[in-house]
Amino acid sequence: MGLEAEPLAAPHPYWPRDLEIGRYVPNDRPTWHSLAFLFSVSAALLALTWRAAGWRGWMGAPMRPGRRLALCWFAICGFIHGVIEGWFSLYHMDIPGDQSFLSQLWKEYAKGDSRYVIEDNFTVCMETITAWAWGPLSLWTVVAFLQRQPHRYVLQLVVSLGQLYGDVLYFYTEYREGFAHSEMWHPLYFWFYFVFMNALWIIIPSILLLDAWGHLSAAQRALDSVKAKRH
Amino acid sequence: MGLEAEPLAAPHPYWPRDLEIGRYVPNDRPTWHSLAFLFSVSAALLALTWRAAGWRGWMGAPMRPGRRLALCWFAICGFIHGVIEGWFSLYHMDIPGDQSFLSQLWKEYAKGDSRYVIEDNFTVCMETITAWAWGPLSLWTVVAFLQRQPHRYVLQLVVSLGQLYGDVLYFYTEYREGFAHSEMWHPLYFWFYFVFMNALWIIIPSILLLDAWGHLSAAQRALDSVKAKRH
Repeated sequence: MGLEAEPLAAPHPYWPRDLEIGRYVPNDRPTWHSLAFLFSVSAALLALTWRAAGWRGWMGAPMRPGRRLALCWFAICGFIHGVIEGWFSLYHMDIPGDQSFLSQLWKEYAKGDSRYVIEDNFTVCMETITAWAWGPLSLWTVVAFLQRQPHRYVLQLVVSLGQLYGDVLYFYTEYREGFAHSEMWHPLYFWFYFVFMNALWIIIPSILLLDAWGHLSAAQRALDSVKAKRH
Repeated sequence: MGLEAEPLAAPHPYWPRDLEIGRYVPNDRPTWHSLAFLFSVSAALLALTWRAAGWRGWMGAPMRPGRRLALCWFAICGFIHGVIEGWFSLYHMDIPGDQSFLSQLWKEYAKGDSRYVIEDNFTVCMETITAWAWGPLSLWTVVAFLQRQPHRYVLQLVVSLGQLYGDVLYFYTEYREGFAHSEMWHPLYFWFYFVFMNALWIIIPSILLLDAWGHLSAAQRALDSVKAKRH
């Protein structure tokens, strides 16, 4: 066979630099399209959920600002898990060569973690569970709080622990590989995409986990003391 | 260099058959030593915890058989996560060539999943979190129920969800690799070691998760109705 039988793929921007990515096609949209989509939809969901949570027509007492913010967080999580990570879970094998909008978003993100363009096994499994379990459960959490369902804090605990564990594994596996899939210390790709964006899913779920722990323990303590008085 | 400069490792029993495992030394103890250790310590913990949970000196009402069994489960989990998986998390790099008791147990188990003798990255990360998070938290769950601490069901939920998520990822990653690390359909190695032993950590945590969900929701419902009456 002549060399022309296997055309070289376009040079890619991913790390490690010698990574082989078949069928790679560079993005034809500018980066700000992806970032604008992510942040404007998130901002719209934040505004919408903030207003919805403040509506007095729901059962129960009006929500405090912290609780309203938590609901905004879960609404944004429902979008990011369900839509963006859902796309990855369905089309991870096509993303390097695909030019649809969300594939271009993932090709951009992968500059901070190339596991997203090589169908890394752990990454596909973790993202699939995130998309199909924590995504819908995030939206259910919003509804559960708006309607004051008795399992609202259980849902908050389940989603937050699931996000936290998945994200700890995400960082830990990459740490043990020496952060090989990113250009270390790059301000945008390493620090913003890889470290900062994912650190959010460590910090906020940890706070919400402790918050749910406190509320559920208080409810159990109240029930225990009622039962103790009856005896 | 002559061939003698790199002596071939002993032939190994792991799958895929062409897997390269440096420094492999076959076990010098019979298999039943490992199995007897695992099951006799588990049985002893079961008996001990069953008795402890039945002792009337603890606070609160006497425990039902189902609750006592659940505590036995968490005590056994504390042992398996903390000791057996703790050993793996500390010494996974030495296990193939090591003859200490727990390394031999892992070399035996790895016949059902060779990821344990090749320092598979996901496996090491997941096992380390299991050993150091779910291990101690399992023991705390036992104590929390014996002392009727208000966060006892929160702990049950956290440990069970952590075990469930880790185990789902464990099966899912191996499924996506075509069960390459085991001799498929082998009655002892595939079905008993790999499928059955790990299926326990899918089934039992699922039941305990739903149980905790029910108890915590009931406590929250009771507290909500008290607060609603006050208004």
